[in-house]
Amino acid sequence: MTKLATGIDGLDEISNGGLPRGRSTLIAGTAGSGKTVLALQFLYSGVKYFDQPGVLVTFEETPADMMANVASFGWSLEQMVEDEKIAIVDAAPDPSESVVEAGGHDLAGLMARIEGAVRRVNADRVILDAVGALFPQFSDSLLVRRELQRILSGLRELGVTTIINLERVDDEGAVGRFGIEEFVADNVLLMRNRLDMEKRRRTIEILKFRGATHQKGEYPFTIDDRDGVTVLPLSATSLQQSSSETR
Amino acid sequence: MTKLATGIDGLDEISNGGLPRGRSTLIAGTAGSGKTVLALQFLYSGVKYFDQPGVLVTFEETPADMMANVASFGWSLEQMVEDEKIAIVDAAPDPSESVVEAGGHDLAGLMARIEGAVRRVNADRVILDAVGALFPQFSDSLLVRRELQRILSGLRELGVTTIINLERVDDEGAVGRFGIEEFVADNVLLMRNRLDMEKRRRTIEILKFRGATHQKGEYPFTIDDRDGVTVLPLSATSLQQSSSETR
Amino acid sequence: MTKLATGIDGLDEISNGGLPRGRSTLIAGTAGSGKTVLALQFLYSGVKYFDQPGVLVTFEETPADMMANVASFGWSLEQMVEDEKIAIVDAAPDPSESVVEAGGHDLAGLMARIEGAVRRVNADRVILDAVGALFPQFSDSLLVRRELQRILSGLRELGVTTIINLERVDDEGAVGRFGIEEFVADNVLLMRNRLDMEKRRRTIEILKFRGATHQKGEYPFTIDDRDGVTVLPLSATSLQQSSSETR
Amino acid sequence: MTKLATGIDGLDEISNGGLPRGRSTLIAGTAGSGKTVLALQFLYSGVKYFDQPGVLVTFEETPADMMANVASFGWSLEQMVEDEKIAIVDAAPDPSESVVEAGGHDLAGLMARIEGAVRRVNADRVILDAVGALFPQFSDSLLVRRELQRILSGLRELGVTTIINLERVDDEGAVGRFGIEEFVADNVLLMRNRLDMEKRRRTIEILKFRGATHQKGEYPFTIDDRDGVTVLPLSATSLQQSSSETR
Amino acid sequence: MTKLATGIDGLDEISNGGLPRGRSTLIAGTAGSGKTVLALQFLYSGVKYFDQPGVLVTFEETPADMMANVASFGWSLEQMVEDEKIAIVDAAPDPSESVVEAGGHDLAGLMARIEGAVRRVNADRVILDAVGALFPQFSDSLLVRRELQRILSGLRELGVTTIINLERVDDEGAVGRFGIEEFVADNVLLMRNRLDMEKRRRTIEILKFRGATHQKGEYPFTIDDRDGVTVLPLSATSLQQSSSETR
Amino acid sequence: MTKLATGIDGLDEISNGGLPRGRSTLIAGTAGSGKTVLALQFLYSGVKYFDQPGVLVTFEETPADMMANVASFGWSLEQMVEDEKIAIVDAAPDPSESVVEAGGHDLAGLMARIEGAVRRVNADRVILDAVGALFPQFSDSLLVRRELQRILSGLRELGVTTIINLERVDDEGAVGRFGIEEFVADNVLLMRNRLDMEKRRRTIEILKFRGATHQKGEYPFTIDDRDGVTVLPLSATSLQQSSSETR
Ligand SMILES: Nc1ncnc2c1ncn2[C@@H]1O[C@H](COP(=O)(O)OP(=O)(O)OP(=O)(O)O)[C@@H](O)[C@H]1O
Ligand SMILES: Nc1ncnc2c1ncn2[C@@H]1O[C@H](COP(=O)(O)OP(=O)(O)OP(=O)(O)O)[C@@H](O)[C@H]1O
Ligand SMILES: Nc1ncnc2c1ncn2[C@@H]1O[C@H](COP(=O)(O)OP(=O)(O)OP(=O)(O)O)[C@@H](O)[C@H]1O
Ligand SMILES: Nc1ncnc2c1ncn2[C@@H]1O[C@H](COP(=O)(O)OP(=O)(O)OP(=O)(O)O)[C@@H](O)[C@H]1O
Ligand SMILES: Nc1ncnc2c1ncn2[C@@H]1O[C@H](COP(=O)(O)OP(=O)(O)OP(=O)(O)O)[C@@H](O)[C@H]1O
Ligand SMILES: Nc1ncnc2c1ncn2[C@@H]1O[C@H](COP(=O)(O)OP(=O)(O)OP(=O)(O)O)[C@@H](O)[C@H]1O
Ligand SMILES: [Mg+2]
Ligand SMILES: [Mg+2]
Ligand SMILES: [Mg+2]
Ligand SMILES: [Mg+2]
Ligand SMILES: [Mg+2]
Ligand SMILES: [Mg+2]
Repeated sequence: MTKLATGIDGLDEISNGGLPRGRSTLIAGTAGSGKTVLALQFLYSGVKYFDQPGVLVTFEETPADMMANVASFGWSLEQMVEDEKIAIVDAAPDPSESVVEAGGHDLAGLMARIEGAVRRVNADRVILDAVGALFPQFSDSLLVRRELQRILSGLRELGVTTIINLERVDDEGAVGRFGIEEFVADNVLLMRNRLDMEKRRRTIEILKFRGATHQKGEYPFTIDDRDGVTVLPLSATSLQQSSSETR
Repeated sequence: MTKLATGIDGLDEISNGGLPRGRSTLIAGTAGSGKTVLALQFLYSGVKYFDQPGVLVTFEETPADMMANVASFGWSLEQMVEDEKIAIVDAAPDPSESVVEAGGHDLAGLMARIEGAVRRVNADRVILDAVGALFPQFSDSLLVRRELQRILSGLRELGVTTIINLERVDDEGAVGRFGIEEFVADNVLLMRNRLDMEKRRRTIEILKFRGATHQKGEYPFTIDDRDGVTVLPLSATSLQQSSSETR
Repeated sequence: MTKLATGIDGLDEISNGGLPRGRSTLIAGTAGSGKTVLALQFLYSGVKYFDQPGVLVTFEETPADMMANVASFGWSLEQMVEDEKIAIVDAAPDPSESVVEAGGHDLAGLMARIEGAVRRVNADRVILDAVGALFPQFSDSLLVRRELQRILSGLRELGVTTIINLERVDDEGAVGRFGIEEFVADNVLLMRNRLDMEKRRRTIEILKFRGATHQKGEYPFTIDDRDGVTVLPLSATSLQQSSSETR
Repeated sequence: MTKLATGIDGLDEISNGGLPRGRSTLIAGTAGSGKTVLALQFLYSGVKYFDQPGVLVTFEETPADMMANVASFGWSLEQMVEDEKIAIVDAAPDPSESVVEAGGHDLAGLMARIEGAVRRVNADRVILDAVGALFPQFSDSLLVRRELQRILSGLRELGVTTIINLERVDDEGAVGRFGIEEFVADNVLLMRNRLDMEKRRRTIEILKFRGATHQKGEYPFTIDDRDGVTVLPLSATSLQQSSSETR
Repeated sequence: MTKLATGIDGLDEISNGGLPRGRSTLIAGTAGSGKTVLALQFLYSGVKYFDQPGVLVTFEETPADMMANVASFGWSLEQMVEDEKIAIVDAAPDPSESVVEAGGHDLAGLMARIEGAVRRVNADRVILDAVGALFPQFSDSLLVRRELQRILSGLRELGVTTIINLERVDDEGAVGRFGIEEFVADNVLLMRNRLDMEKRRRTIEILKFRGATHQKGEYPFTIDDRDGVTVLPLSATSLQQSSSETR
Repeated sequence: MTKLATGIDGLDEISNGGLPRGRSTLIAGTAGSGKTVLALQFLYSGVKYFDQPGVLVTFEETPADMMANVASFGWSLEQMVEDEKIAIVDAAPDPSESVVEAGGHDLAGLMARIEGAVRRVNADRVILDAVGALFPQFSDSLLVRRELQRILSGLRELGVTTIINLERVDDEGAVGRFGIEEFVADNVLLMRNRLDMEKRRRTIEILKFRGATHQKGEYPFTIDDRDGVTVLPLSATSLQQSSSETR
């Protein structure tokens, strides 16, 4: 199992070299936990530092908004789109369309569009942000399982390394709404925005990498307005120990 | 991402300059947590201190009641309505109407009325108070997602900065009833009325600002009968520390 | 926002002068928490000390039983009924009727009867005890919202100050069964019968008064066999402090 | 509100004189908490010490079994049945009958049979053990409310003092399965079989007596093989204090 | 109420003499808690030490497997079957049958087969292991109540002393899946396999014996490979005290 | 009951000799808890150290992926497949097939394929990884019970020793989604990935072995990149004690 270096500070350390190459990694987190920033940083770093083109697939936010939101980090994503280093697939439902068949997303069409985009820019990296809106609430979990399975095997065939963002309502418990998402994916990463004593603390954890080593447990990270996500490759305990030692 | 100063003491500090301009901010809180006071204060301050006209959209309380409720703060909203600085859209269901299609709110009509009001007073600020009554309880979350998405993109096109109040039954857990509201919105603010040892304590937190910095964690605030909402831009911990230092 | 003094010891203090005049206050509490005693005391005190006639609307217990239950306090409610200071609306379902349309309460008819009673005695005060039986369990919360809204706006038009008692299964969590009752009402008061270490302790709290000041947090109260409800306008903490000081 | 002395040691003390006369008291408790022993003791003591005949209504256990179960206490219930001091209404469903209409209990027929039995022995006391089997699981709570209401008002008309036993799955939370039972009844008594550190401890509590005084909180009680239920009219705290004083 | 000595060490002590004779005792416990070993030990001891023949009714495991599983204890159940001291009723559903009417168990047929077996060996003891598979998950609890009631009264008529094993998913909370099993049974025994600090600890508790005395609370027990179940008739507290005294 | 040595370090010790021979053991664990690694190690060790051929049945991951994932351990599974020491049954649903009958898995066909594979390589060991996808979410638990029962008895007839992996959403509570899986299986093993203070800790526990002895409670284990699963046959407490003694 080879890894693809993300170029995100600290993340390549705790993942022992990056994300499993050629596979998908599910990133689950609550609202505002940093999923989108991390995924865009993965795309940006790919083009910038590794000359690996990428594809951005959006389901709800517009691509323009997403790119504007990370402009303050100095990530020139629009330029990269122009330079045909990044291709965009806007899979948001047409707002004028009525929602006759709730969740009746056309998966085959979606996969075809992603494949086209990957071909166009010769992409190595793909991000899907965020797939929560793909499945209606009262769906049979077996059906969701199959759909997700199809998306994953479709992406696998394209040979790209993918990040799939998934919304999560709580920092604890099942990873996804259906209690099956974490089993279907080969790799799962959790981003948490822990609330403790009315203070917030961000952590990132590699829950599983099938067939590969990684560091275990949660690692603190920050999102500041210059560098985006920075992971501290020291566990909380190490931090406490070292800080208590330095006293 | 530019910010629009709210003019509310302390809030502009913890938000690093105000609410994201041209976007919507969802404010979720339990009954009596202060959502309506804060939203009206946002509208009032806009007219009073920044010469920014506003639109008040109501779904349940009558506009007259809402304005009467904050009269004691000396906020002359009725006068502002008269001066055409504030326009009103009363979207409460006609009480005489039967509720044939529960939740069958006419969204397109609503958006048109809001647009008309925005045009009329040339509004910069809009508040919707409160959208809980828009969605029936047993709705498919995917449907609610789409509807909320439509409201948000409609408001985005108007170029206004919006506050959308949302009822929340508990201070913890999912932000909204459907577990998806916090993902659809770009910006989420939480108002809490914490019960601890039979005493109440009000706090406000910026849960997320897509594409912008903000202070993290909960900040105490008060509602007194002269100034409405006042946020203390010191975290609880800082307060405790400083108070323990002054002893 | 003016207040209407209730005449109940301590309650007028923690409410900074009484209940919001001309509006409804929802009182939620578990079985035996004291809702009915408090509401009847509000009615009795109105006639006795302020010469304000009242209307008693019942949904389950018979008016005779309710008045008998507080006879031991020396509250001569039957006499007041005779003197046409108190009018009664018995809205309990006819026991012989079959429950064809569960919850298919005739709201318009109910409002008409209340209005008639208010007119008859020229009432200032109205109590509804208790509205839990009005809504069937599996109802859509949106429907309940509209119905409750109608009751409240009907009462508002009558110009009376109203107490609406609502059953609550637990001292914590959502105020009502549907998770929306506390948002529809302008004013919410909570009566608790806390169980701690196998002992009971009664507390009362003003959760919200729209547009008005009030004391915050829970205050202890007692129901004894002479005076009914007596609220101690000192918070638990003050009590503990003062008691620890007097040691 | 007068009381009817039960003749059960300690219970008459914590209830300030017995159960509210002419009314029903709901007794809720988990399996084995002592509901049936207490109810039969109420019936037995009535005949034995107060010359008050009684009616035993059963819904599941056979009357013979129930009387056999308390024979070891020396309560000669069979003799009392023979002496026409106690009448029996066996309301258990005919086991050979198919359950076509689940829960379609014939309430009117039941009330008629109870009335007949009350007349026959000129009963002052009635016990119903236990009503859990009367209502199917997925019933609308409003329907259950009405049915329970009818039973209660039917018993009220008979002028008897009634105990109604109700099964409860947990010692905490809502009193009954439907979350409405405790509101419909005038009087509620809770029997608990608390599990603490793998030891059991029995307590009894008067949750509410409408229109009457009573001691508050939980009181320990025992069931031994000579006297049945014996309530210790000292609260746990008093016990602890006195025991710590006697050290 | 007479008791039937089980012959299981310690159990006869905490039950003050054994299981209520001629009645059924429900034994509920999680997977692996020891229900089957205890029930077979009850059967084996009956034949071995009291010359009381028995009937083994199985619903899922094959009788052969069950007997093989306890062979290591030296319990020669197969021999006893041969000697016509134990009769077997294999009530497992025919695996080739399709599950047309889920849960549509033929209760009358089952009772007839049990009766035949009891007659054949002149049984005093019967065990049913385990009844969880008898009732479909989404059944009306009232229906389950009636079915269980029928099984119990059928067994009662046979004059045998019965153990009925019931699966339980959690060591706390309601005894059975439907929240009614513990009320229908006359006698309930709980076997727990407590997990504390990653260690397991087995306890047994008599939750209720209608009409009979018993020791209260949980008692530790072991399953070793020579004697099967051995109950320590000392409560955990006594054990701790005595052990701390012997220090 | 004889045991089949697994060849996995430490596991044979805590299981007192290995897995019950000729039976199935259910292994339940959350995503990434190590179920697949352990099962493949069981297969690999069988061929390598005991000359026991095996069958790998997959339901979701492709066999190629699974074998690639453990290649880094030096387990030459592909070679073993070539040498006809391991046979493969790929039971993943055909991705092109539509999911008409959700969960309508063809069990008979599956069993026939497994039997064929067992015959082909003359297998002693079989693993099924993982059966969660076999049952739709809203299925009747009774139906799932029967299906699982059929799989288990089919495997029993083949005379093989089987591991069945089962997904579990939480480390606590019911073992499987339907609350019945742990009762149907003869043997249950739990793999946990405990999160404590933001650190992860892996433990393995034998919850039950019908008819056989085993060590109780949780034992720590590791997955490193050379040896796969290694169980530490010392309980956490022993470890702590010994480590504190060695200080
Ligand atoms: N440009 C920025 N400058 C500084 N901080 C930022 C910036 N963009 C995002 N953040 C921080 O990151 C948070 C949101 O990150 P992000 O949008 O990646 O979350 P997310 O997990 O994708 O949330 P959602 O599920 O709601 O889409 C913001 O709340 C803010 O605190
Ligand atoms: N005019 C006022 N003077 C003083 N305090 C006030 C005033 N208006 C409101 N408050 C305080 O603010 C609280 C309610 O605030 P607000 O109505 O904004 O809450 P909310 O979050 O909108 O609640 P809801 O969801 O029920 O509408 C009141 O309970 C009161 O404590
Ligand atoms: N006349 C009285 N004398 C003394 N105490 C009384 C009297 N009436 C009521 N109480 C006390 O008040 C409690 C019940 O009060 P009340 O009937 O007001 O409760 P509630 O909240 O209306 O309950 P429910 O929801 O069941 O109607 C009784 O349990 C008792 O402790
Ligand atoms: N004759 C008796 N002698 C001694 N103790 C008894 C006797 N009868 C009952 N008990 C004790 O009382 C407990 C059961 O009491 P009882 O049958 O009244 O409970 P219950 O609340 O009616 O339970 P259920 O809801 O299951 O009917 C028994 O478990 C036992 O501990
Ligand atoms: N080749 C490997 N080298 C090192 N560690 C590995 C290797 N394969 C797996 N692991 C570790 O084992 C974990 C996953 O193990 P495994 O795939 O057996 O889990 P699982 O219980 O089968 O999960 P799932 O239910 O998601 O299939 C990985 O997250 C990783 O930590
Ligand atoms: N022959 C035996 N030798 C030693 N221990 C045994 C033996 N049989 C069972 N055990 C122990 O007893 C446990 C299982 O007991 P048993 O089968 O009675 O549980 P159960 O409650 O019937 O479980 P289930 O509900 O899964 O049938 C085993 O996990 C093992 O620890
Ligand atoms: Mg995002
Ligand atoms: Mg409001
Ligand atoms: Mg009341
Ligand atoms: Mg009973
Ligand atoms: Mg068993
Ligand atoms: Mg796996």
